[in-house]
Order: sequence, then C-alpha cells, then structure tokens
Amino acid sequence: MSQDNSNPYAHGLDKCDANYVALTPLSFLERSAYVYPDRLAIVHGQRRYTWKEVDSRARRLASALKARGVGNGDTVAVVLNNTPEMYEAHFGVPATGAVLNTINTRLDAEAIAFILNHGEAKVLLTDREYARTMAKAVELAGRPDMLVIDVDDPEYQGPGERIGTLEYEAFLGEGNPETAFQMPADEWDPISLNYTSGTTGNPKGVVYHHRGAYLNAMSNIISWGMPPHSVYLWTLPMFHCNGWCFPWTMAANAGINVCLRRVDPRLIFDAIREHGVTHYCGAPIVHSMLANAPAQWREGIDHKVSGLVAAAPPPAAVIEGMAKIGFDITHVYGLTETYGPAAVCAKHDHWADLPLAEQVALNGRQGVRYHAQEGVTVMDPQTMEPVPWDGETMGEIMFRGNIVMKGYLKNEKATEESFRGGWYHTGDLAVMQPDGYVKIKDRSKDIIISGGENISSIEVEDALYKHPAVMAAAVVAAPDPKWGEVPAAFIELREGATVTEEDIRAHCREHLAGFKQPKIIAFCEVPKTSTGKIQKFVLRERIKSTSSFE
Amino acid sequence: MSQDNSNPYAHGLDKCDANYVALTPLSFLERSAYVYPDRLAIVHGQRRYTWKEVDSRARRLASALKARGVGNGDTVAVVLNNTPEMYEAHFGVPATGAVLNTINTRLDAEAIAFILNHGEAKVLLTDREYARTMAKAVELAGRPDMLVIDVDDPEYQGPGERIGTLEYEAFLGEGNPETAFQMPADEWDPISLNYTSGTTGNPKGVVYHHRGAYLNAMSNIISWGMPPHSVYLWTLPMFHCNGWCFPWTMAANAGINVCLRRVDPRLIFDAIREHGVTHYCGAPIVHSMLANAPAQWREGIDHKVSGLVAAAPPPAAVIEGMAKIGFDITHVYGLTETYGPAAVCAKHDHWADLPLAEQVALNGRQGVRYHAQEGVTVMDPQTMEPVPWDGETMGEIMFRGNIVMKGYLKNEKATEESFRGGWYHTGDLAVMQPDGYVKIKDRSKDIIISGGENISSIEVEDALYKHPAVMAAAVVAAPDPKWGEVPAAFIELREGATVTEEDIRAHCREHLAGFKQPKIIAFCEVPKTSTGKIQKFVLRERIKSTSSFE
Ligand SMILES: Nc1ncnc2c1ncn2[C@@H]1O[C@H](COP(=O)(O)OP(=O)(O)OP(=O)(O)O)[C@@H](O)[C@H]1O
Ligand SMILES: Nc1ncnc2c1ncn2[C@@H]1O[C@H](COP(=O)(O)OP(=O)(O)OP(=O)(O)O)[C@@H](O)[C@H]1O
Ligand SMILES: [Mg+2]
Ligand SMILES: [Mg+2]
Repeated sequence: MSQDNSNPYAHGLDKCDANYVALTPLSFLERSAYVYPDRLAIVHGQRRYTWKEVDSRARRLASALKARGVGNGDTVAVVLNNTPEMYEAHFGVPATGAVLNTINTRLDAEAIAFILNHGEAKVLLTDREYARTMAKAVELAGRPDMLVIDVDDPEYQGPGERIGTLEYEAFLGEGNPETAFQMPADEWDPISLNYTSGTTGNPKGVVYHHRGAYLNAMSNIISWGMPPHSVYLWTLPMFHCNGWCFPWTMAANAGINVCLRRVDPRLIFDAIREHGVTHYCGAPIVHSMLANAPAQWREGIDHKVSGLVAAAPPPAAVIEGMAKIGFDITHVYGLTETYGPAAVCAKHDHWADLPLAEQVALNGRQGVRYHAQEGVTVMDPQTMEPVPWDGETMGEIMFRGNIVMKGYLKNEKATEESFRGGWYHTGDLAVMQPDGYVKIKDRSKDIIISGGENISSIEVEDALYKHPAVMAAAVVAAPDPKWGEVPAAFIELREGATVTEEDIRAHCREHLAGFKQPKIIAFCEVPKTSTGKIQKFVLRERIKSTSSFE
Repeated sequence: MSQDNSNPYAHGLDKCDANYVALTPLSFLERSAYVYPDRLAIVHGQRRYTWKEVDSRARRLASALKARGVGNGDTVAVVLNNTPEMYEAHFGVPATGAVLNTINTRLDAEAIAFILNHGEAKVLLTDREYARTMAKAVELAGRPDMLVIDVDDPEYQGPGERIGTLEYEAFLGEGNPETAFQMPADEWDPISLNYTSGTTGNPKGVVYHHRGAYLNAMSNIISWGMPPHSVYLWTLPMFHCNGWCFPWTMAANAGINVCLRRVDPRLIFDAIREHGVTHYCGAPIVHSMLANAPAQWREGIDHKVSGLVAAAPPPAAVIEGMAKIGFDITHVYGLTETYGPAAVCAKHDHWADLPLAEQVALNGRQGVRYHAQEGVTVMDPQTMEPVPWDGETMGEIMFRGNIVMKGYLKNEKATEESFRGGWYHTGDLAVMQPDGYVKIKDRSKDIIISGGENISSIEVEDALYKHPAVMAAAVVAAPDPKWGEVPAAFIELREGATVTEEDIRAHCREHLAGFKQPKIIAFCEVPKTSTGKIQKFVLRERIKSTSSFE
C-alpha cells in the first residue's frame, strides 16, 4: 500500500518561506511589542519599560553589537544581576546571530577568566557591583580584543569602578531601535552558553539552541498553567540556565518582569505586595527563607502566589513550610543540560485531600516529563533497561527530547559520553515509583555505600532538616575501615540556635534506621554555590584531608 | 570575527536521538495517558473514558489499521460526528504513519465521493447516521479495495443501516492496546487532510504536518490562556480543520472532552451545566443561537464560560449578545489552510471600560498573529507591500509561519499560486487599523464595486443583522448597467417575524450610506455550508440566472 510512487503526499508539498520558519524565542518579543506596545514589561526600582521599549532597547543592543562586528557564532558574555539589561541581552544578543553566555556573578575571578576564555567571549557586559572581581578576571583572561561594557544600574549605589570601554546606555545609543532582528537561519543554531553549577567540581559549557529555547518557553506556560500577563518576580538568577528560559516565557506571555538585584525575603514580600506578583521561581533555599520569615512581612498579600522550586532536592520541611504560608508551590526538576526544568511533579486533584505529610511526600518527587520534553525515565545505565516501577530499584535518570542541550562546547568526548544510548545521562540516581513518578535518591557521586547498603545522602539530610535548629545540612561519605563508607553530616545551625551533637544523634535515632545515622557530625558553615546549592565536593575534600591526618 | 573555522559552535554539537525528536501531537496523548491515566478524558452520553482508555483505544485503532496494511502516506477518511471515535482517530490514524481525512458530514454523496477519490482513501470510518448518503458515496466512488468500517454509536438511535465490512468496536478488538505509536520520521510528514469549506465553490485538499499540529495545539492554550484541565465542549465539528487542532490541544492540556453529536442550544446549556464546561468554540451562528436562547435555559450556570468565535465574520450583534449573557468571547480568525485560527483579536485590559458598542467594534476585528504563527499582515498582492496602518487602504490578508499548510494535495499550481512571494494569500480583503489589528472587509470574490466605490458585503450584512427580525443575511453583487455592480441582499427572517421590504429599506437608510444600501432585497432561506457559512456563490448563481431572465 505504501510504496512511495503511490504516495500522493510525497510530491508538491515542500517547505517554503510561507510555511516554514525557524523556531526562535525572538519571535515572542516581536509579538508582544507588536500586540502590547504600551503594556508594562519590566519594573526595576524606579525604572519602567513597556514591551515596545524593551523591544527597542534589544534592537539597539543588537544593532550596536553588529556595528562592532559581532555576528554568527560569536560569544557575548554577561556578568549581570536580574536587571533590565540582563533581560534585554536575552534578545539583543541572539538577534545578531551571537550566543549569550550568562556567567554566575558569584564566581571568583579565576573561574570567570576560565569561562571567558573557554567560551571565547568577544564582548563582556558587566555590572559595576562586580568591578573588583571582574577587573581581575579580565586581566587574568588576557583577551585584549574583548570589548568590555559596564552596566551602571542606578539602583546600585555601592562601591565599584567602571572597568570597561564604555557604559551600556551609551552603547545602546550607538544602536538603531528599528534594526531588524537577525532570525536564525536554522532553529538548531546556538542561542546561549551556560556553564553548569560546578557542584561536582567541573563546570562544562552547555549550548542551547533556538528551537529548545522556544519550546521550553512555551512549555513553562503549559506545564505550570501560567496565565497570560502573569506578574513574574525575578528571584531566580537569569544567569542560571537562562533563568530556566523564563525571560523568553515572559515575552511569550506578555507579562510583567519584576526585577530584583538580590534575593532578600523582605524585599521579595514587598515586591509581591506592591506589584501584585503572581509567579516566581527559586532554589529550595529561596522558598525556605520565605517560609521562615516573620509572618508580618506577608501582611497585605491576599492574592494567589505560585512558585516553582528546583535546583536541589527540596527538603520536606520546605514544601511543608510553603503550604503553611499558603503559597502554591510546584516542584520541577532539571539540569543546565535540559534548559532548566524539564520534569514536573504534576499534581493530582485528590492529593489536596490527603494529610499534609503525604502531600509533601508526593510533591517532593521529581515527577514526569515537561510537555516539550519527550521523555524522562530511570534506567540501568549499563543495560539501558528501565527500572521496574517499584519505588526501590535504583537507576540513573535519563532525558530525551527537544529540551536537551546541543552538547558541551569544545568537549565532544563529554557530549558523546552524556548522550550514549540515545538518552542524556543526568548522573542523578533515582527510583521509579508505582505511579511512574521519578524520585531522586542521590547524585551518583553522592550515594553512600555502607556495608554493601546504599544510603541516600538526601534522605539523611531530609531527616536532619526536620530538626528545628538546622538551617542547612549536607551529608557525604566518609571512608571507614569496617563499612567501606559511613555518612558524615555537616550542619549549619539557625541563628541563635544551640544544640549539641548528642541532640542531633537522638533526633537521628528517631528518624533514621541505624545504618543510615551519620557516624560523624560537624557544625560549620556549609559551602554553597551562588545558586544556593551545597558543594559536596568541598566537604568531601575536607573529610579526606581530615582522615589523612588521623 | 565570524569565519566558520573560528566558530567554536560549528562542530561537535549535532542532532542525535537524545536531543532531537520530531514534533508531533501524538506525544501529548502519550503524556496525558502516562501522567493522568485515571483522569476523565471523554464524556459522551453515558460513556466515559479516562486518558489511559483513550490512549489504549487509539493504540488498538493504530494496530488494527496496521494489520490491514495501512501505513505511511495512506489516507484514512472519516465521516463522523463529534464522538469518541472521531477523537481517537486523531491519534490512532497518524500513529500508523497514515493521514487522517475528516470529511464534512453534511456534504452530499457526490462531494464525498469526489473527496474519497481525490484523497485516495484506503479506509473509511462512517457513522451509521450517514449510512444513506455514504452508501451512495461509496458506490459513486468505486473504490473496491477501500475498507469501510461502521461507527454505531449507542447515543444514536435514528435510522441507518450498517454499510461496511465490520463495526468499529469489533475492529478495535483486532488491535493491540499496547502497540507503540509510530512517531513521524520527520515532523514535516503529513498528519491530516482537510478539504476547504467550498464557500467559493471549489474545495481543495489542505495537507497539515505533525509540526504544525503540535505547535498550534500549544498555541491554542497560550493564545487563548486556557488553563490545564479545562472542560471543553465539542460544539465545533472536528471535521472542520481538525476542530481547529483542539483534539490535540485537549490532549496536551489533559482536559475533558465533552462530546456532542449535534449543535442544539438546549443541549449545549445542559452540557455546560452538567459537566462544568469552561471552553467551547464555534462559528458565529453557534454563539448567536446561545445568545438568543431563552434565559431560563442558562439557569444554574454560574461559572465562567469562555468561547472562541471564527469561521465567518461575527456580526456585531453576536458579539454584543454574548457579552450580554456574560460569556467571555474571543474572536479568532483563520482558514483551513492555517490549521484553523492563526490570528486572534487579543484583548486589552482597558477595552473592558469602554462603552459596549466600542468593545464590540474592537473585538470584531480579526486581530494579530497567534503565538505559533510568524506573521499576519495586509498587503497589496501585486507589489507585496504592506498597506499603511490607516484603517482604510484595502489589501489582502497574508499569513506566514509554521501553522500554514504544507500545500494543496495534488495541486502544485494552486499551492504555488497561494504561496507566491513567500506568504500565504488568504483571498480575504482587509485594512490594517492604526493599532496593527487586521479588520476584514470582505473576501476578494465578495467585494462589490459600485460606481468605482468598494462596498464591503460584510458591512452591509452587519447593518442588516442589527434589525431584530433578521436571522441571517447575505449580500452579493448584482450586475447593474449603470453602476457596474450593486448590492443585493438575501434575508432569512426569524421564526414568526413579519417585515416588509420597505421596513428593511428604512432600516438600511438609517445605518448605511446611500450607495451601500442594497438595491435588491429578497426574503428566502439563505444557503449555508455545514459549518454555518453562507454560500455566496450559490446566491451569485441565483442572481445571474435571474438577471438573464429579465
Ligand atoms: N528538583 C530537584 N530535586 C533534586 N535535585 C535537583 C532538582 N533540580 C535540580 N537538582 C540537582 O541539580 C542538578 C543540576 O544542577 P546544575 O545543572 O545547575 O549544575 P550541577 O549539576 O549542580 O553542577 P555540575 O554539573 O557542574 O556538577 C541535577 O543534576 C540535580 O542533581
Ligand atoms: N473571524 C473571521 N472573520 C471573518 N471571516 C472569517 C473569520 N474566520 C474565518 N473567516 C472566513 O472563512 C474563510 C476560511 O474558511 P474555510 O477555510 O473553512 O473555507 P472557505 O474559505 O470558506 O472555503 P473555500 O476556500 O473552499 O472557498 C476565511 O478565508 C474567511 O473568509
Ligand atoms: Mg550537573
Ligand atoms: Mg478558503
């Protein structure tokens, strides 16, 4: 029946300019500027920009960059807070054919210099707040041709010299607000470059394409159920996986971007009240700060506020805390390699009727695939066989689909390795629960194997977080002559809390099986990345050096 | 700066199974069946199906079709109402690589036979209600190898024999509910075949691809602001542009499909009340029936109901009527060639504060592009220059983007003609208003040129609709020795209304400039297509034959 010569659809139905256009999120900004030119797009301190203004500024940026020779395959690096400039860069840079490299503002000069060189940055936009580190980074990088542009945000009054050739607003002045966006010739063209958090010690340059950015921008709306014109508060850094693609989502949604230079619970509640914020995202630590803030800070907020939590396993205490203050939290999961969230713990109506503890357990799972992602599953990485849905058999989480990176920049080996068998290997260990929801147990590097038994460091941390004095907890493997490995706990206490090692041990006896209880307990400040993630590799180094002294 | 050898992104970042998957709406059904297996998906009379059941039935259908040799590039035609079988066909058929050809149930046997042959149908699914016409159509078509399958819906108790080889449920019984969907090798592969309404007399076979179906399914959610799990009432025939892609939208949204065998205002209000319907779509006539129904039929409906209107210019009276009964109507515009709606009259907050008449005028425009469409504009079709945004200069509406058809089946000439200059030519005449919103004036074939002046037949009809006795109105050009053409009005009166020609003339004098007032007025039943569109070409024939007798 199906020979090609008898297939009437095989001829005369080809692609042409009328019916095929490369997908790109630039299209969303064009649309909002066209349809809602006067609608508020950005709020930042005293500044206000409409969609028409954001669009014009992005065009100026593109035009000024082009005039300086920036184009296809060039990298424009930025070290910026969540400011209008950062937002504009998400459009103005790719609109030249160049790639936006958003750099974590909390990295040190060496790390930034490494990224500038590895990513081959041609231009750098840098906020005056980071002048000190950045002056050093630029020097270390030794890229004499790199154009350095200062962003001098009136909202920032602190110290810092301008270190560049010119200031951002002057640079925009060089540009033409009517320039046409250069749309990608191919939707597979790169749009951005994001270095991983370096939790495992080794940041890699993840490259996104226009197609994925477009699709994930849409999927954020659909998978979260985000209404048009939502008011979005920028608690999540845009330098982290391009703010999980929300700069592009907000352009599609013609919502309001409420900018925020720094995460502070008081400022967050004030912004929610003042601007009617309906949506925000953040790592568990952000939500936990809100849940633990004094109740009177929330006064006067009576509209519905929805939040996404991801980036690290949200402790049960955080999910519970948010439920108690009445924020509607949805748990998502993803990696830099998957454009941020690519799985969501999709809620079921009847969960709401369950006891809070059960709700928290259900919502604490990493869930199911995003709409625009084709698959997330848990497999044995050797056999590439899915694990049974028994909630017990451990395997590695794998993703497949259109919101998986192009690959790691200049690292074909790591790229191929991570894509072997046609799935992206996350390095996260998990089980598949009977309803097909993924539940992370640990990172492969963090799992503790004690006397042949697997211990999830996350489970032990979760138990520790239940103690009211515990602010942050990290559990890693300590070498042990008898058991091979044993859990070691690093605990950061809440301000003013006093608690003894024995108190913690007693608490653990109540909540954990014997072999899972930490054998070593240390009180200290827990080292975190700028995205609020705990750097276990630092702790592991610490354990190793301690043990070698013993 | 941008030579390819210096472009670090040019190598090692290719497509592979892990990071590239062809877009297809089949993916949405798989997801909802996976995530919400037990959630209600379809309501039809006494029948209920969950997402898992819909998925299994679609897989059975695919598997049974495959076993009968159906595969890539084959056509499966259906003559079905809005029933579960019709919904399943939207997934089960493309899941074999075949193309779904939904045929208008109100066509006559000759027209259907033409489509079966032109589309080269290998299989036909047909509802027992249409047995009579279909027996004749099958005979006329003379396709001895075509497998004919009866759908015998328990909700249909009327006359009609089974005319096929076997019944649908038995056919499903041949299939395996666990069969894997055959995902398209290329997202450009055809998914469906839709013949145009034939308003201009000449139906053409429009071919959609998986990519467009996927994107428009998402765009329906985003452009309309449709929340997850919406309850959707099937007032719009799924045979019309695949129900504007809503079968796929509802699968993405994991909502409830409330089926409906026929459009009847009483049944519609009952369904809205009983099932908590939140969304529905329809031609102006559907909304007008609701607006004009007795108020007590609406009793007990106190939740928000949102509707889309398109398919024909909605008379101001309809938009106003819907506002009065409190339904939230959004006006969209598109064609079979653009997967149904591809433009939307996006609302602005401040419109709600304007006097009703102004609101109605603003909402009566065809608007701006859908999110997934790249462009809609009004151009001079000769020069391909956009018209000025003056609300006066007439041009042709053109679309460009990913929700424009692959082309017309076996009609390269018409395809090329319609895509000339890199835009799809709609044949609709319009102006661009100062805010960039498109306003249709007429179809190019319907515009009346009287004494050198353009008269929009739609404008004259709109004036006629304002008369309380007028149920339907159609205005066409009548040849005139002095003026070239003059407007002729065909008017269908409401039941029980009595009105004279002179009453209508007086009404027109009040609402229309002299040269726009119809010179000929006739009372009759106005001929409509099954989608509620008026067949002006029939009226034009009537005028011609009348004139030739004079
Ligand atoms: N919802 C979540 N629950 C548990 N862990 C999460 C969640 N979201 C993200 N993560 C963790 O964060 C990781 C992804 O983080 P990211 O890509 O920012 O950098 P990283 O993996 O921490 O750093 P690197 O790859 O350089 O070691 C995931 O692999 C997972 O371990
Ligand atoms: N919102 C709307 N306002 C005005 N007209 C509309 C609207 N939506 C659709 N239409 C009309 O319907 C047409 C598209 O209808 P469809 O594709 O179903 O078939 P048709 O054009 O009526 O038939 P044929 O192409 O065979 O003549 C548009 O070209 C336009 O004239
Ligand atoms: Mg990682
Ligand atoms: Mg048409």
